[in-house]
Amino acid sequence: MAGVRCFILLYLLCLGSVQAGKLLVIPADGSHWTGMKPLVEELGRRGNQVVVVIPEASLSMGPSEHTTTLKYPVPYTKAQIQEGLSGGLDKVFSMDTSSDLAKLQIFFISMDVLKDFTVKNAEGLLFHKDLMAKLKDLDFDAILTDPFEPLGAIVGEFLQVPAIYMQVNHPCGVDFLASQCPSPPSYTPQRFTRFTDRMSFWERSVNMARTLLQPTACKLLFSRADEIASRFLQRETSMVEIMSRAELWLVRADFAFEFPRPLMPNMVLIGGMSAHKPKPLTQDLEEFVNGSGDHGFVVFTLGSMVSELPEAKAREFFEAFRQIPQRVLWRYTGVVPKDAPKNVKLMKWLPQNDLLAHPKAKAFITHGGTHGLYEGLCNGVPMVMIPLFGDQGDNVQRMVVRGVAESLNIFDITSEKLLGALRKVINDKSYKEKMMKLSAIHKDRPVEPLDLAVFWTEFVMRHKGAQHLRPAAHDLNWVQYHSLDVIGFLFLVLVTFICVMLKTCQFCFRRCCRSSNKKKKE
Amino acid sequence: MAGVRCFILLYLLCLGSVQAGKLLVIPADGSHWTGMKPLVEELGRRGNQVVVVIPEASLSMGPSEHTTTLKYPVPYTKAQIQEGLSGGLDKVFSMDTSSDLAKLQIFFISMDVLKDFTVKNAEGLLFHKDLMAKLKDLDFDAILTDPFEPLGAIVGEFLQVPAIYMQVNHPCGVDFLASQCPSPPSYTPQRFTRFTDRMSFWERSVNMARTLLQPTACKLLFSRADEIASRFLQRETSMVEIMSRAELWLVRADFAFEFPRPLMPNMVLIGGMSAHKPKPLTQDLEEFVNGSGDHGFVVFTLGSMVSELPEAKAREFFEAFRQIPQRVLWRYTGVVPKDAPKNVKLMKWLPQNDLLAHPKAKAFITHGGTHGLYEGLCNGVPMVMIPLFGDQGDNVQRMVVRGVAESLNIFDITSEKLLGALRKVINDKSYKEKMMKLSAIHKDRPVEPLDLAVFWTEFVMRHKGAQHLRPAAHDLNWVQYHSLDVIGFLFLVLVTFICVMLKTCQFCFRRCCRSSNKKKKE
Repeated sequence: MAGVRCFILLYLLCLGSVQAGKLLVIPADGSHWTGMKPLVEELGRRGNQVVVVIPEASLSMGPSEHTTTLKYPVPYTKAQIQEGLSGGLDKVFSMDTSSDLAKLQIFFISMDVLKDFTVKNAEGLLFHKDLMAKLKDLDFDAILTDPFEPLGAIVGEFLQVPAIYMQVNHPCGVDFLASQCPSPPSYTPQRFTRFTDRMSFWERSVNMARTLLQPTACKLLFSRADEIASRFLQRETSMVEIMSRAELWLVRADFAFEFPRPLMPNMVLIGGMSAHKPKPLTQDLEEFVNGSGDHGFVVFTLGSMVSELPEAKAREFFEAFRQIPQRVLWRYTGVVPKDAPKNVKLMKWLPQNDLLAHPKAKAFITHGGTHGLYEGLCNGVPMVMIPLFGDQGDNVQRMVVRGVAESLNIFDITSEKLLGALRKVINDKSYKEKMMKLSAIHKDRPVEPLDLAVFWTEFVMRHKGAQHLRPAAHDLNWVQYHSLDVIGFLFLVLVTFICVMLKTCQFCFRRCCRSSNKKKKE
Repeated sequence: MAGVRCFILLYLLCLGSVQAGKLLVIPADGSHWTGMKPLVEELGRRGNQVVVVIPEASLSMGPSEHTTTLKYPVPYTKAQIQEGLSGGLDKVFSMDTSSDLAKLQIFFISMDVLKDFTVKNAEGLLFHKDLMAKLKDLDFDAILTDPFEPLGAIVGEFLQVPAIYMQVNHPCGVDFLASQCPSPPSYTPQRFTRFTDRMSFWERSVNMARTLLQPTACKLLFSRADEIASRFLQRETSMVEIMSRAELWLVRADFAFEFPRPLMPNMVLIGGMSAHKPKPLTQDLEEFVNGSGDHGFVVFTLGSMVSELPEAKAREFFEAFRQIPQRVLWRYTGVVPKDAPKNVKLMKWLPQNDLLAHPKAKAFITHGGTHGLYEGLCNGVPMVMIPLFGDQGDNVQRMVVRGVAESLNIFDITSEKLLGALRKVINDKSYKEKMMKLSAIHKDRPVEPLDLAVFWTEFVMRHKGAQHLRPAAHDLNWVQYHSLDVIGFLFLVLVTFICVMLKTCQFCFRRCCRSSNKKKKE
């Protein structure tokens, strides 16, 4: 009996070792890690050898379950990252205009801060000889990384292992650029424009200009990473070129949210992957939300990075909440006015998904980050959205045009505006109805997004890549890809043909004239 | 107890009635029906009410399991279809050239024959008032049809039910045209060109011309269907316009076979759907193939439509088979020479998939129809391919460039050429190795193609469509879609800007000159 058991165990171990792969993970910080972590842990749980490489100081990255974590030294502390972040947020909240120029200015400032961290991270890992030698020795089957942190792509290129990128709304759209995915500017709005897929002539013109400028934007964004990659790999290269060799793009999008657009075969949509199953609420929370009666309650968070607001702005929120019959759960650690309304429960952290899944949840006030957005979508809760920075403006626009959300501006928010928006999404039944339909569509899928991401990551490990999904477009230069040489040639053929035809007609006509003249003379 | 049972039964019935939908199916004849039948039967088996509408006379269509079949009268017999088909095949076999012009001629002749059947079918069903009224009364949730038979699309448009099209290599590429799917001509070869995704300058030029002519090709191909649709629906319309309203395209393709290219969100790849699990061989077949020893055996079929060959051509095959150590199973009903080699077993019909799944199967001689091709791919058997007509030339090319097949020409085939090709794919191990890799990639998928097709068909029925997957491109005209107006406008802006700059420079320069002249004079 013991022999049989031993044999089964051995068989299972063999099976495990055949199926399991070795995966290197180089994630990006903040909400990017929140998005990638469930996949990384699930891959580890399934018996793959997963090694996560992170900097010694980070906002949210740390050891994850079923994985090995390796840290590399960096010349900054967690406090310094938080400081940089707060500085950026202060700029957002202190802006007195919501003009595109002001937004662009903030964008460039934050990009500069990010580029600075990129350089420090890259120098911390790439030139850490022992760690890089260790990674080489481990002989990985694939690397899973986030293009938001270019370091991973450079390491993957150096180790020459098949690369999988997990991506959502990259600032310069490197996912669509590097994968050579057609993005017709007439109905595919560029990121950070807040346009929908139905654009006016002016919007289409701006979108076209933005599309033409996309490669330049990526050059600017990756300027320092390009330089480091070229120096480290000892050849002239760029991040776009490195990323064009991606085996697979795991795109955190879903067409219940994203506008329909062409995709490439090596793009797998896994939007909503991190929206996990809700857990029951703690007793005090359950009591609080049940105490709201038929009016229900409102969930209010501005993402993992923002738990405070300038006092004056916060007051507008408190004033609005005082005037609604719903109870409010707000993730807030800022200054609380003395006469704060009693229907508001302030918390340092709140179980957002579990609360949104509660049948009494009536509305969700959110900044429009993708995680919260998919949780709201999954649970069918209409939203009041207040975008702060990054891709949030685009995300908000997508929900607003679907009639499931109202949008407000953080720069000129007042209690009246907030009250109006809240009452609209709660009392106008169309918001809830449309959200329930959208939610049903989003959740009706042949494979759960996490399982799909696991499958395709393991596929790349099993087959040492996914070259059969890589289009031949990558072997063409810009002129060839856009068929400009062919168009020129066909145009030349056409012109030649027309000229020859005209000359022939002219010649025939002259001959006819001449012969008739001759006849006349005769 | 009986009460409880009754309750459970009622609950299950309710559950069934909630989940099940009503589906109208209007298939196309021949191998198209072979491709669609497994899906239709599976949908019926799962409790959906499936009504299949077919003409009274057809090649292969007939009642299917778990479905209801309705027939409409047509002014032709099965014998007449077979006659038309034989006529076409005779032309293929009697051709003494494989030139593109000759192929085009055959293509147009066969298209004319098909168009004739289309008109007869359309008039048989569309103007059959009782049947059409019955279909309207049945209030379907969706229609599943094949764009190769335009009738289904017209019926769907008339009944105004969400339409799902199942498609493989449509002659004018209506699937990509009507779904507004970008097909960059630089690396997406047009159908019937036999080009690969890596084209020479000349091939790219031809491909570009073909791409530009695609709408005209569809107009020609659907000329009579367009006329019938306009007459029946009492408004000016075209098949491309009707099909552009598709909710979903079930595309019988897979990137283990097809060249990687962009896809639209409402396209679901289900290539290999009809390659079912192999069954054990009958005793006599098992004895025959096992008798081949280590040499193994060769499977030879030219599709469901061709079981005969002109005597002279057949002799070349017999001669080649005489010289190989393998045994041969050939689906052949033609003239047999007296001295036919003994290693050849001729059959009226053979279990192609079951034979290909046998470990002793060494090679597969096929015409390159998609069904056989996926069965060969699934079972990892290298091929000798002899394309006859339609998309077979393109299919063959795709297998040849992957190094898993050799291609021969039916017009100039000789026993030497066949022998050379057979020996190559059997004895050169690289063919088998590459085929096994391709087979592994093809079979490694998160959901089986049949389950995926079932899921998405039921999705459309559940949600009364899939509008969230329909791109806004459909709301743009040709000029807008290609941004020609925007390009013109941006060009004008650029020219104006340059002119203003030049004029300003000129003006400044003149002022400078004038002032310096003044100074000189002073």
